[in-house]
Amino acid sequence: MNAPAPAPRTRPDAATIAGLTEALRAVLGDRVTESRAVREQHANQLTWAPCEPPDLVVFPHTTAEVQAVVRACAERDVPIVPYGVGTSLEGHVNAPFGGVSIDTGAMNRVRAVNADDLDCTVEAGVTRRALNAYLRDTGLFFPIDPGADATIGGMAATRASGTNAVRYGTMKDAVLALTAVMPNGDIVTTARRARKSSAGYDLTRLLVGSEGTLGIITEVTLRLHGIPEAISAGICPFPSIKAACDATILTIQSGIPVARIELLDEVQVAACNRYSKLTLPETPLLLVEFHGTDAGAREQAERFGEIAAELGGGPFDWATGADARARLWQARHDVYWAAVALRPGPTIKNMSTDVCVPISRLAECVEATKRDIAATGLTAPIAGHVGDGNFHTLPLVDADSPEEMSAVAGFLDRLVARALDLGGTCTGEHGIGQKKMRFMESEHGPEALGLMRTLKRAIDPRNLMNPGKLIP
Amino acid sequence: MNAPAPAPRTRPDAATIAGLTEALRAVLGDRVTESRAVREQHANQLTWAPCEPPDLVVFPHTTAEVQAVVRACAERDVPIVPYGVGTSLEGHVNAPFGGVSIDTGAMNRVRAVNADDLDCTVEAGVTRRALNAYLRDTGLFFPIDPGADATIGGMAATRASGTNAVRYGTMKDAVLALTAVMPNGDIVTTARRARKSSAGYDLTRLLVGSEGTLGIITEVTLRLHGIPEAISAGICPFPSIKAACDATILTIQSGIPVARIELLDEVQVAACNRYSKLTLPETPLLLVEFHGTDAGAREQAERFGEIAAELGGGPFDWATGADARARLWQARHDVYWAAVALRPGPTIKNMSTDVCVPISRLAECVEATKRDIAATGLTAPIAGHVGDGNFHTLPLVDADSPEEMSAVAGFLDRLVARALDLGGTCTGEHGIGQKKMRFMESEHGPEALGLMRTLKRAIDPRNLMNPGKLIP
Repeated sequence: MNAPAPAPRTRPDAATIAGLTEALRAVLGDRVTESRAVREQHANQLTWAPCEPPDLVVFPHTTAEVQAVVRACAERDVPIVPYGVGTSLEGHVNAPFGGVSIDTGAMNRVRAVNADDLDCTVEAGVTRRALNAYLRDTGLFFPIDPGADATIGGMAATRASGTNAVRYGTMKDAVLALTAVMPNGDIVTTARRARKSSAGYDLTRLLVGSEGTLGIITEVTLRLHGIPEAISAGICPFPSIKAACDATILTIQSGIPVARIELLDEVQVAACNRYSKLTLPETPLLLVEFHGTDAGAREQAERFGEIAAELGGGPFDWATGADARARLWQARHDVYWAAVALRPGPTIKNMSTDVCVPISRLAECVEATKRDIAATGLTAPIAGHVGDGNFHTLPLVDADSPEEMSAVAGFLDRLVARALDLGGTCTGEHGIGQKKMRFMESEHGPEALGLMRTLKRAIDPRNLMNPGKLIP
Repeated sequence: MNAPAPAPRTRPDAATIAGLTEALRAVLGDRVTESRAVREQHANQLTWAPCEPPDLVVFPHTTAEVQAVVRACAERDVPIVPYGVGTSLEGHVNAPFGGVSIDTGAMNRVRAVNADDLDCTVEAGVTRRALNAYLRDTGLFFPIDPGADATIGGMAATRASGTNAVRYGTMKDAVLALTAVMPNGDIVTTARRARKSSAGYDLTRLLVGSEGTLGIITEVTLRLHGIPEAISAGICPFPSIKAACDATILTIQSGIPVARIELLDEVQVAACNRYSKLTLPETPLLLVEFHGTDAGAREQAERFGEIAAELGGGPFDWATGADARARLWQARHDVYWAAVALRPGPTIKNMSTDVCVPISRLAECVEATKRDIAATGLTAPIAGHVGDGNFHTLPLVDADSPEEMSAVAGFLDRLVARALDLGGTCTGEHGIGQKKMRFMESEHGPEALGLMRTLKRAIDPRNLMNPGKLIP
């Protein structure tokens, strides 16, 4: 049975926005702006999605202020779009129906660090790097690291992950509880600080990954981890994508608690060499990292080296010093900009996207994708969090060329179809946003999508929250 | 804003049940029973909750048969109660409004094991021990171990955990995807086999812990883990609950990836000595286990020993042999029956229950609870998964004594109030069922409970699924 799609949306008229602006100024003073430049900054800037600015941008300081904004918008039937730092790659921050962008950037206080419990509570606008800087003296760290320095609220809303997810999990695992303002104006705190609970529906996980379509996340309680005593890390070349993927599977099956295991294909390695002035061998590489005691981190690296050698990989160079590691991970962290630099130009856009498959099917999926890239004539490096079966590709296309835009759209369709055929998902960590809505039904089927629609209709009957995203 | 409670429920009349019986026999043949003994077996048997039998018990073999049962019940407005093996401690399997108990016990096939991906798909009626027996030759295991040999479906429905949760997580973490029959008859599969996904609402976690109130789980895809190369385990006495809890905190903060860390109080130790014919020192004990390489498991045990000694604990006796470990864990696994044996008698019931608090508050919570037990004059041993801040107590009361029943009810109220005051939850792993519904509003607050009610109303508008549970 198909549940109805979200309620139809229209764009508010000028008089409504004028009235709303006045009402919001009464609460937020000059933290309400109609400036065109600011509104454009608060819509998609990074990728091939168009830029669709909101009518207003507001900068609340507290959950109560967010509640006041939501109530004022709900009264006037005006859409609400949450905004962290705008690093979404799938059009999440666009305002296709106008409305108000809620910029949580000023909600950047760390409210509590409970070192004994390995948790902390932060406002939604704290970025992951700011949090780790704040934690520096506690011996604790927050492991989730999407490429960008995203906000914790945005990371929770998109169920983000990154290079450490193979060991430390994703935002689904990292969030103990959160506070959100719901479409009816309720402030809901989803759970307490206990590490586990069986007390009712998992409201935390209902909101994690909901992309602002069910409520606006304003505070997040996160699990933290002890900074490991020792870290070893290294780079290992492989003769093929398949050999690198097989080494990954064997590493995980052997119970080696690898903290990071990242694949770069030879196109991405060449891009990194050029951009970051490195001299890495231009062949598929695994970048790995191990956390443990001195002896443990060393033992893990040695075992990984043996596995790599069995599969024709190597030499595996590894080190435990912080400087050598920093150099090593620089290449990984610069992947996005290195890839973008492969094809400069004012009309060149990237279509950075990701899929995720069971790791047994990863080599097959990456290799078929590389053949498709070649056949389609695209420039598109590949990098992946291969311990999770998750990889990214970043085709660079000329937005002024209808042929290129059509070719890349066809490539994306085939990439997703391939991932789904192999038991995977259309996105491992970037989310659905606007650009992947068309895959929701083929991924989930009409019944599961119907259930998602039922949830959206029940919680946000008027489709106020981030309309035009996630649920087609 | 308060959402309305679940739709009111009435008990179906005899004619309705007679018509339903006929309809179900057309689908299931003799796998439909009205036998009083079987119906009573399918209601609460284990604890102080009354036994409230269903009108019928059915034994489907497939998801399609469960769907046929749900449709037949929905047509006639008859309640549906899912049943695994009936090890719930909070009245989950009772049928306070009669209706049909769906026994998933015959749905006990392992449908697929994907060793390379460390996952498997099983029918809901597979028990955790049967699954591990099936996996024995694969080098993989399924870590979640509530005391009872529960079914995977029941464990998913109650968000179960157990002794390994501190390292391997709970059912929230173990379930990759599941299939459920929803109140409208839809068969929903919540996710694919990819290890992570950002594609839409987390339907998996919506159903995990929903206690059969949103849908009937029929299949589950689980994460598995490689059997560790080496295991070390041991028992360590402590001078006080506080010292044992502090050792736990320090162990976890130090990044020692302890696989199990279990507390027994001196009352529970004495019960275990008597029941399992052991000679453990009758003082607070930690039972610990470490998983890793040979060197790693040894190193972890040595470091734990140092931490224990710092806090006045010890001697820490540990071993790596399988036999010695089996003896050690026997005591832990017999905790429930050892406790029950403390006060035998036909009218004696146990009120086994659990709470969970941030680990920094655990010693305080356990010590206050022990004082309360003494002041209330209860026999009530304590055992806990202290790495999670979760502990159990098992007061033994004479169900024929109104004074004792009233005293234990007061004790439970104070236990939960204490856990909530300390930032905890009214249940870490047993669930809400019938007996903890009265704590839902004080734990979650009216807004979050209102959101749960909105979900229940949207998905199960007629309150067909396990009525009288979870949502007050």
